[in-house]
Amino acid sequence: MGFLRFFLVFIPISIVAEFMKLDSVWIFILSSISIIPLAWFMGKATEEISVYSGPRVGGFLNATFGNATELIISFFALKEGLFDVVKASIAGSVIGNILLVLGASMFFGGLKYKIQKFNRKVIEVSSSMLLFAVIGLSIPAIFTYTMDTELIANKYQWLSISIALSMFIIYLLGLYFSFYTHKDLYGSDHEESTEAIWGLKKSILVLVICTLIIALESEFLVGSVEPMTESLSLSKIFVGIIIIPIIGNAAEHSTAIIMAVKNKMDVAIEIAVGSSLQIILFVAPVLVFLSLLFKPMSIVFNKFELVSIIVSVLIVNRVASDGESNWLEGIQLLAVYIITALSFLI
Amino acid sequence: MGFLRFFLVFIPISIVAEFMKLDSVWIFILSSISIIPLAWFMGKATEEISVYSGPRVGGFLNATFGNATELIISFFALKEGLFDVVKASIAGSVIGNILLVLGASMFFGGLKYKIQKFNRKVIEVSSSMLLFAVIGLSIPAIFTYTMDTELIANKYQWLSISIALSMFIIYLLGLYFSFYTHKDLYGSDHEESTEAIWGLKKSILVLVICTLIIALESEFLVGSVEPMTESLSLSKIFVGIIIIPIIGNAAEHSTAIIMAVKNKMDVAIEIAVGSSLQIILFVAPVLVFLSLLFKPMSIVFNKFELVSIIVSVLIVNRVASDGESNWLEGIQLLAVYIITALSFLI
Amino acid sequence: MGFLRFFLVFIPISIVAEFMKLDSVWIFILSSISIIPLAWFMGKATEEISVYSGPRVGGFLNATFGNATELIISFFALKEGLFDVVKASIAGSVIGNILLVLGASMFFGGLKYKIQKFNRKVIEVSSSMLLFAVIGLSIPAIFTYTMDTELIANKYQWLSISIALSMFIIYLLGLYFSFYTHKDLYGSDHEESTEAIWGLKKSILVLVICTLIIALESEFLVGSVEPMTESLSLSKIFVGIIIIPIIGNAAEHSTAIIMAVKNKMDVAIEIAVGSSLQIILFVAPVLVFLSLLFKPMSIVFNKFELVSIIVSVLIVNRVASDGESNWLEGIQLLAVYIITALSFLI
Repeated sequence: MGFLRFFLVFIPISIVAEFMKLDSVWIFILSSISIIPLAWFMGKATEEISVYSGPRVGGFLNATFGNATELIISFFALKEGLFDVVKASIAGSVIGNILLVLGASMFFGGLKYKIQKFNRKVIEVSSSMLLFAVIGLSIPAIFTYTMDTELIANKYQWLSISIALSMFIIYLLGLYFSFYTHKDLYGSDHEESTEAIWGLKKSILVLVICTLIIALESEFLVGSVEPMTESLSLSKIFVGIIIIPIIGNAAEHSTAIIMAVKNKMDVAIEIAVGSSLQIILFVAPVLVFLSLLFKPMSIVFNKFELVSIIVSVLIVNRVASDGESNWLEGIQLLAVYIITALSFLI
Repeated sequence: MGFLRFFLVFIPISIVAEFMKLDSVWIFILSSISIIPLAWFMGKATEEISVYSGPRVGGFLNATFGNATELIISFFALKEGLFDVVKASIAGSVIGNILLVLGASMFFGGLKYKIQKFNRKVIEVSSSMLLFAVIGLSIPAIFTYTMDTELIANKYQWLSISIALSMFIIYLLGLYFSFYTHKDLYGSDHEESTEAIWGLKKSILVLVICTLIIALESEFLVGSVEPMTESLSLSKIFVGIIIIPIIGNAAEHSTAIIMAVKNKMDVAIEIAVGSSLQIILFVAPVLVFLSLLFKPMSIVFNKFELVSIIVSVLIVNRVASDGESNWLEGIQLLAVYIITALSFLI
Repeated sequence: MGFLRFFLVFIPISIVAEFMKLDSVWIFILSSISIIPLAWFMGKATEEISVYSGPRVGGFLNATFGNATELIISFFALKEGLFDVVKASIAGSVIGNILLVLGASMFFGGLKYKIQKFNRKVIEVSSSMLLFAVIGLSIPAIFTYTMDTELIANKYQWLSISIALSMFIIYLLGLYFSFYTHKDLYGSDHEESTEAIWGLKKSILVLVICTLIIALESEFLVGSVEPMTESLSLSKIFVGIIIIPIIGNAAEHSTAIIMAVKNKMDVAIEIAVGSSLQIILFVAPVLVFLSLLFKPMSIVFNKFELVSIIVSVLIVNRVASDGESNWLEGIQLLAVYIITALSFLI
């Protein structure tokens, strides 16, 4: 993945483009490409800090900074009041992690190995946690769409905040579960130590610098969404559900696929499922809390986003219960992703 | 659980309160508290009669009188025409049994034992039966909400009755299955014999007396629902879906949690699942039949009740397939329950 | 099943009835009965040709001609513009294969054998493929029902065709998977060779003649649907979802039940699941393509059909995960089928 460093050249280019007020389509593309290597360096820096901080704090750091890029992009979208895009990108990250990443991992892994086995036990904990998280997340939406009550805005907001709070507590309890009370369940996967290359100080510096530049690029990116979607007559939801999650997770996604091709299917699945779990239990609640700084965002997804999330989570539970994968399963996941994307394009 | 006998003192207090026409909130609370020990004594008496009647008739008695309290409360709600409350309390019993009881059992059991194992085979029969029962139950509702046909009232009622009849037949066949053709599947759990304390005659007497007093208290309870919900501006559905099921099942619920803390997770799950199954296959159809005495009640739930039931049943199927539980799973079930309850409170 | 040859006498009777312009109810019944033995002979001929063509081409032939009867009936319904009936019969075939055929197989098999075991592994591949197929199929419908966008007719049609194409590609890849890359997964079931009775030439002749007569009878059948449903005040959807699938699959269905009674539960389940899979991945897309010859048919099912299909597929996945069946499970599947049918009758 070292070649990603060459992408860093797009950072100055995108800045120049922004100041020259180039067409929004170009700004969108250039800032997107700039974010990809930054996200990758940020991941590296976090991993390296983990080496120094010991496995518990390290696990916590990894779990928390794993979706920092998405959090930053969403923060700026939130600030711009693009609630539709924010919620679509939450839904899109879950769908993308499960259908696209897991699908591509199973497909490319399956081309090389006839049947790939993985440890059901480890994945069952996360995938069942994911199921509960999604159910909790769906309740207010199901309530909104099924009851004919006119919910008073204030109360409604209060419900969103309570649910975000519950999610966040479950997230913390989940960390406590996996790093304290039941840490022996999670065997060798979590110990894959990275060698220290940069040293602690330099890693922290990399982390800070990357965060700042990502913040800058995210502002360009988010600023270009509205004019771009208008000039290309794309729907904003398509951008939110398909494009932003791919940018935010590109580095992570490639890692999963590389692991699958190395026949480490456990790691590939854990990346996809763990990342989805963080999105729902950590990123989504934090965005609800942050929205209180601007204009409160409810946690209610639109029906199609909701159905897509639920279906993805059911699929991952089905896949996990099996303990094996092959190329055909991978293609089927990819086909579901493509059909979903096509539906939004139209 | 012997301390429950002290609660019996609330019976005369509630009767006095009713005749003094105290505020409906008090009547509701006092009659609720009175029902709890009565339900527990009724359970005890049924178990003791089972000792004398032999395992088959005993199993039948336990299976049939297990939800007698709820049946009595619902009967009076039916008589008052509170169909919303009756249906909400059917849904609420299923949700409460699965999310609240199973959640609390797994949580408190999990605090004491790191991982609790249980026999998947036994639970799979009930949980898969529960799945089919719920699907059968959902069909008329799904039909109502998805087809744009104006169903003529008479035909509609006829469909409700046919479904209730099918449910009831499946219930009888299920008893035949578990007590005759496949009784060896159900091992030691069902043999936990109680020592006879009261003797047969006294047990029957206790059963009859408890039934009569529960009937009286239920009439107070149901009579107070409407004025109470108005004065507290609670929704009637909240009372039906959350409060009544907790009252009706309190004794049973505590037993499940006690069993879990004793590491008898099989028994705890069997109580939760078995009780849900009786609600859907026995209590619901019987209430549809009884409603013909007053004004016919359809078997169509509102969308949120339906979704909640389906989700709960999917969860229990997921949990059962695993064969293990821990405190985090318990907390997640409880969180889903709390979020559901909050949604109805608002 | 040899007695079926006596049903061939209904072919001339139905032709005479058609030319005498008998009542549509009679034409419907007579042409239905004529199709049943023809479908059976066509199946026999295909199997025999497979003996000569070797297992790979043979598997392909069986997989492709297995639902030829339904394809032909649907083709004529398509020509008549009876889109509702065509889509209902696709949904009805899936429901019928899973609820009716699997239910009857488990019930009758279960009456003879207390517990019937089957190989989970083999069924899990098909049932998980079925799950993905149904999810893919549901996406445009879910999109249509959940988004408030007015989709422009042209784009909409383009989406239907893309999905049909994806399905068809998955179908071909599935055949490649089961006959080339992973053919060792599918053990002895696929090798149950039939003895050659007719010889190759005669088999091809039987296949051609049966196809022609089925085409003729299907035209009578489809022509009688509209006047018959009017004169009996049945809904066309009921005919599509319940009656046509039973006619089209009668021969196949009986085979599954016979296998179950012989305790070959694997074969029975494989027939039900495999046939459903062909309907969704092969018959449905081909009908979408064929509709372009007349008037384009979208792949969007009505909500009830969709829910029924999804529920059936969830049931078969649940049943497969278990690895065992008994008479009670069979009765429950049948009960769900009967309740569904009743809902449509009203």
